[in-house]
Amino acid sequence: MSQNKGRVTIPTDVDVIQETLALGERWGADAVRDCDGTDFPVELKDAGMKVYSTYYTTRKDNEWAKANPDEIQQMYVMTPFYTASEETLRVPLMKGLYPDMLTPNNRDDIKRWWEVIDRSTGEVVPVSDWDYEEASGEVVLKSVPFHDYTVSFLAYIMWDPVHMYNAVVNDWKDVEHQITFDVRQPKTHAYTMKRLRRFIEEHPYVNVLRFTTFFHQFTLMFDELAREKYVEWYGYSASVSPYILEQFEKEVGYPFRAEYIIDQGYYNNQYRIPSKEFKDFQAFQRREVAKIAKEMVDICHECGKEAMMFLGDHWIGTEPFMDEFKTIGLDAVVGSVGNGATLRLISDIEGVEYTEGRLLPYFFPDTFHEGGDPVKEAKVNWVTARRAILRKPVDRIGYGGYLKLAVQFPEFVDYVESVCAEFRELYENVKGTTPYCVKRVAVLNCWGKMRAWGNHMVHHALYYKQNYSYFGVIEALSGAPFDVKFISFEDIAENPAILKDIDVIINVGDADTAQTGGEWWCNPVVSSAIKEFVYNGGGIIGVGEPSGHQANGHFIQLANVFGVEEEKDFTIGYDKYNWENHSHFITEDVKDKIDFGETRKYMYALEGTQVLVSEDQELRLSVNEFGKGRAVYMIGLPYSFENSRLLYRAILWSSGDEANINKWFSTNYNVEVHAYIKNGKYCVVNNTYEPQHTTVYRGDGSSFELDLEANQILWYEI
Amino acid sequence: MSQNKGRVTIPTDVDVIQETLALGERWGADAVRDCDGTDFPVELKDAGMKVYSTYYTTRKDNEWAKANPDEIQQMYVMTPFYTASEETLRVPLMKGLYPDMLTPNNRDDIKRWWEVIDRSTGEVVPVSDWDYEEASGEVVLKSVPFHDYTVSFLAYIMWDPVHMYNAVVNDWKDVEHQITFDVRQPKTHAYTMKRLRRFIEEHPYVNVLRFTTFFHQFTLMFDELAREKYVEWYGYSASVSPYILEQFEKEVGYPFRAEYIIDQGYYNNQYRIPSKEFKDFQAFQRREVAKIAKEMVDICHECGKEAMMFLGDHWIGTEPFMDEFKTIGLDAVVGSVGNGATLRLISDIEGVEYTEGRLLPYFFPDTFHEGGDPVKEAKVNWVTARRAILRKPVDRIGYGGYLKLAVQFPEFVDYVESVCAEFRELYENVKGTTPYCVKRVAVLNCWGKMRAWGNHMVHHALYYKQNYSYFGVIEALSGAPFDVKFISFEDIAENPAILKDIDVIINVGDADTAQTGGEWWCNPVVSSAIKEFVYNGGGIIGVGEPSGHQANGHFIQLANVFGVEEEKDFTIGYDKYNWENHSHFITEDVKDKIDFGETRKYMYALEGTQVLVSEDQELRLSVNEFGKGRAVYMIGLPYSFENSRLLYRAILWSSGDEANINKWFSTNYNVEVHAYIKNGKYCVVNNTYEPQHTTVYRGDGSSFELDLEANQILWYEI
Repeated sequence: MSQNKGRVTIPTDVDVIQETLALGERWGADAVRDCDGTDFPVELKDAGMKVYSTYYTTRKDNEWAKANPDEIQQMYVMTPFYTASEETLRVPLMKGLYPDMLTPNNRDDIKRWWEVIDRSTGEVVPVSDWDYEEASGEVVLKSVPFHDYTVSFLAYIMWDPVHMYNAVVNDWKDVEHQITFDVRQPKTHAYTMKRLRRFIEEHPYVNVLRFTTFFHQFTLMFDELAREKYVEWYGYSASVSPYILEQFEKEVGYPFRAEYIIDQGYYNNQYRIPSKEFKDFQAFQRREVAKIAKEMVDICHECGKEAMMFLGDHWIGTEPFMDEFKTIGLDAVVGSVGNGATLRLISDIEGVEYTEGRLLPYFFPDTFHEGGDPVKEAKVNWVTARRAILRKPVDRIGYGGYLKLAVQFPEFVDYVESVCAEFRELYENVKGTTPYCVKRVAVLNCWGKMRAWGNHMVHHALYYKQNYSYFGVIEALSGAPFDVKFISFEDIAENPAILKDIDVIINVGDADTAQTGGEWWCNPVVSSAIKEFVYNGGGIIGVGEPSGHQANGHFIQLANVFGVEEEKDFTIGYDKYNWENHSHFITEDVKDKIDFGETRKYMYALEGTQVLVSEDQELRLSVNEFGKGRAVYMIGLPYSFENSRLLYRAILWSSGDEANINKWFSTNYNVEVHAYIKNGKYCVVNNTYEPQHTTVYRGDGSSFELDLEANQILWYEI
Repeated sequence: MSQNKGRVTIPTDVDVIQETLALGERWGADAVRDCDGTDFPVELKDAGMKVYSTYYTTRKDNEWAKANPDEIQQMYVMTPFYTASEETLRVPLMKGLYPDMLTPNNRDDIKRWWEVIDRSTGEVVPVSDWDYEEASGEVVLKSVPFHDYTVSFLAYIMWDPVHMYNAVVNDWKDVEHQITFDVRQPKTHAYTMKRLRRFIEEHPYVNVLRFTTFFHQFTLMFDELAREKYVEWYGYSASVSPYILEQFEKEVGYPFRAEYIIDQGYYNNQYRIPSKEFKDFQAFQRREVAKIAKEMVDICHECGKEAMMFLGDHWIGTEPFMDEFKTIGLDAVVGSVGNGATLRLISDIEGVEYTEGRLLPYFFPDTFHEGGDPVKEAKVNWVTARRAILRKPVDRIGYGGYLKLAVQFPEFVDYVESVCAEFRELYENVKGTTPYCVKRVAVLNCWGKMRAWGNHMVHHALYYKQNYSYFGVIEALSGAPFDVKFISFEDIAENPAILKDIDVIINVGDADTAQTGGEWWCNPVVSSAIKEFVYNGGGIIGVGEPSGHQANGHFIQLANVFGVEEEKDFTIGYDKYNWENHSHFITEDVKDKIDFGETRKYMYALEGTQVLVSEDQELRLSVNEFGKGRAVYMIGLPYSFENSRLLYRAILWSSGDEANINKWFSTNYNVEVHAYIKNGKYCVVNNTYEPQHTTVYRGDGSSFELDLEANQILWYEI
């Protein structure tokens, strides 16, 4: 494949046929696609480009949905908390919800599937003590005065949340709400397979069916004003129906409870330490989803088509790093690239022929309007993604949206042309190799590989005040020269020997969350294995409240390892004398003041710990030795090139290898070096929008000076 | 008593006889005292002043202590946490402790009284699995590799911690360490009564025995460098001995465990939610201490002397707001006045003839040196104390330290003269009345009246970064026109009707501490009683993380009442739209930006709550209506006149009485008005060091304009 063509997908629409051809030529596109709100112009079917077609398994067929209302998709919803003031309480189900999106399901046995809970005691209210009043939309219950109550209920999804989102964001007028239907249920299951075959027949020019995605939307709800109310990109609450839940019960052998999904209103979001029942449910869903998805993929293959999965939207149950995923038999996965971590979410997937990254910005009016600066967005996106691509490339890139908007911005068209060429060159240089990895690093949390790279990502690559200082670590890793694993506490409990293949463990997040482990630290098998690992020479890095859980005289359960503790008022009577800052290998490249981000409070160093940064009696960064091993504590690490370097040095120091820093290394932290030994190549890449000077160290420790242009990437032979 | 003389105690020493007489005349002193490190000059015995003599029940008799080493006082100490790396672990007992202060007690059965705990599991290590090696000072134990262990042991207190503290602070050279002895034990008990009689006989000129205090020092330890290591003004860990503990066992009917005192190394400090066993132990100690203290008081009375207790040092078991205290029969209590709250700690005591406040600064070289500004310290102390004195006066004031230092500062002598006169005047005006109270306010926590006014006070009136923003509420209350109660969750659980006598409940502090209640909020009797109280028109004010405890879908357990929640990552997926600030009655006197102090993070307002102050999506202050009642939330409230006013307005608003603000009220918050209806007087007091202008409202709503000089207090007839 020449560097002028290939590995690029562009969007099209019926009104931009000529533009599609022209741009396809300039960008070297070899595939075209439609998307939600656009249609493929059949005139392009012989333009020499592969044709992708979005395929919606669960919507865009209101006729079917209306004819089969019992198989409309459902989700579990919990009402707000209501405090009873008398011995009767009325709970309106739809308070706070967008009325057109959801309709309570009282077709099925509500006494079996709904749950009224006394949240003052945690106890379930007996089904004999409540009833649903359909006219008012209220549950009327026998209450204990001044106890709090919630009602968990099933609701039909009468407007697909992503369709609603697209309609709201793009201000679509008079659009018919696309009703969802549930492919898992028998009638729709049978119909779906026929519908897919019909679609393929009717669209003979389509080469790739792009499934968006399979069957279950991640959790997404809207409030009365159609504003986003709740989102959890990993949420399972919209993957339920009595039909499915009865199957689940049969398989696991214990009765299902709404609370397994409702989870006190927290919906098992990624910060919740998962219960056994929720993990059982996830495993069940993955198996069942894979089975039916495979049926659809098989149909595609039978008809000579490729099957591609969009990682997003209805992707629940298809977690691509889990074993079930490979059994689906997909040809490809495509996903939106918001940053380095989301790139790795896609590119690290195994068991498919190719992966594709949808780069930003989408060609939507929110960016492509007068005064908008799509070039800037594209540059930031590309340079951010490129760090990760250099570690593990996607096989293709592409764009989405309305092409007619993009062509109005000639500078943007120029820039994307250069991106496409650069991508093809680097893909050629990198392909087939594993880049040189300085260390083996394991991010330890409750999810492990199931949510690899998705840590601290509630909504695809969006900023959250509470977690950007933790996500920074994941983002830094996505483009760093390490072999990165994601392991869970359960993995260690089952086989502590997995730690033998790791140089440095990272535990990052707030206390008592799934990211740091909470109660897991009271499992002495797990905590001892980790202490032993460090004691015998392993490295460990804790960020935020690592191992944080109040028990047995400590809040930071690895206090002896990290040499730090958090003041939760219980040790306020202990005098704290260790506040003096020291210079250290880890902070050698720090220019001015380290940006620790959204700094939490009240961390302090124990005696013997070396404080690197404390400010106003608040510990920010420290190091400690434990046996032959080393521990680094930091309060937070938002993503920046400077902080990436800090993490790099922390990993080297904690694994006792600081003497080897000058190998495949750039002294200027704005520039990175990646080596592809097998291919005999290495590159030096300027991650900034300004020229940079640096000293580049090769693998043998020899070095040379180098000036790079803004964003430049230079390739060398080894 | 004229306004020129009386109600004032001064310190003396053998080298300042003339100065004592001169100063006594100028300040109108009617009592003199010695203190630790000074001696009373017998020449002054007929100077017309009452003579106080410090009396140390537990030290200053090394001959006795050395002759009875088995009755030297003891304390429970926990070692640091040690991680085992093999199957044997050696734990040095004295690591981190000042060697001259403590000596491990292995005279008694260590297998009975010591405890080795596996802190990775929380389990006790069987006594057969460890031994004490006296030569090395180490406990050698059979360990599970990579579990953490601590040893709890009894140690003799070979140097009284307060004597050591005074020696270190004042740099006393070559002072013989005063060994403690335990009056609770049989030989020392008998000896003590004889020793007291002998002391009285040998000091016939002494009128008042000032006990410092009785038998048990609060917890105070020093590290190897003689620096303070741990302090807890309410700590019980130095009130133990096998003799006492065996009595305790007999009384409560269950075996004692070292862990009841050690409490994972937290030593039951005031932030720990007290266990049943610790509360049992406290009650036992109060009863036993009262019994023996009464014996000593009776001897004083028999000999025609008064008995005065110093509230501090060895005051454990004499908590003056508990029932046992009154049975001791003391004539007086004296205590050091660090601020308004510590003044109320003394002046609120019932069951004694009189109370006395020791004002600051002590005449010690840390203040009285060249370049020192004792006048400034005295002014701050007096103006701060005066606020509280105007609510509930002590009966006397006094000073301590080395008089010879004070006389070298003539401006200080002048200033104290004015303080003494002012105190006598206000005492005359206020005495015998209860000042007008605008509202009945209850501070709710786990300790209730046992630790009234001592909330968030770890070390007498000292600043702590973690709690000054909470203590500010207590300090504001100490001088505010409210009837302030301190109630516990247990009080409510036993009798919810106590809430009927309260207008506003305040819950202030960090989550999961004894100050806010932690698990108590999962007791539906308690939580329902409080919700009912508010629903029916009561007021509630929460500061910090009120009712904070993760359970049943909420972190803030009263989320529905306060209308606020804390983001502990579990609700990060919920969109939060309520950030707009509103003006309100509560903030009407705010001049610029409210100082919320050490602001905690991630509080947010629920829908329907009125936000008064939020900054950068961090909630600081909000109000909410709940039924007929009202709730105020604030993140913190360090003490200042402006913040006192904010709290005042919050109390009025939350109790629905904002219309009556202009009664006994000063529009300028630097000036306060207190009315003493029964005595037909009211005063207007300028709390600042600058002149102030204000409008004063009388009780009938009539008003007048007023200019006050710096610090001025003006008295009026009603």
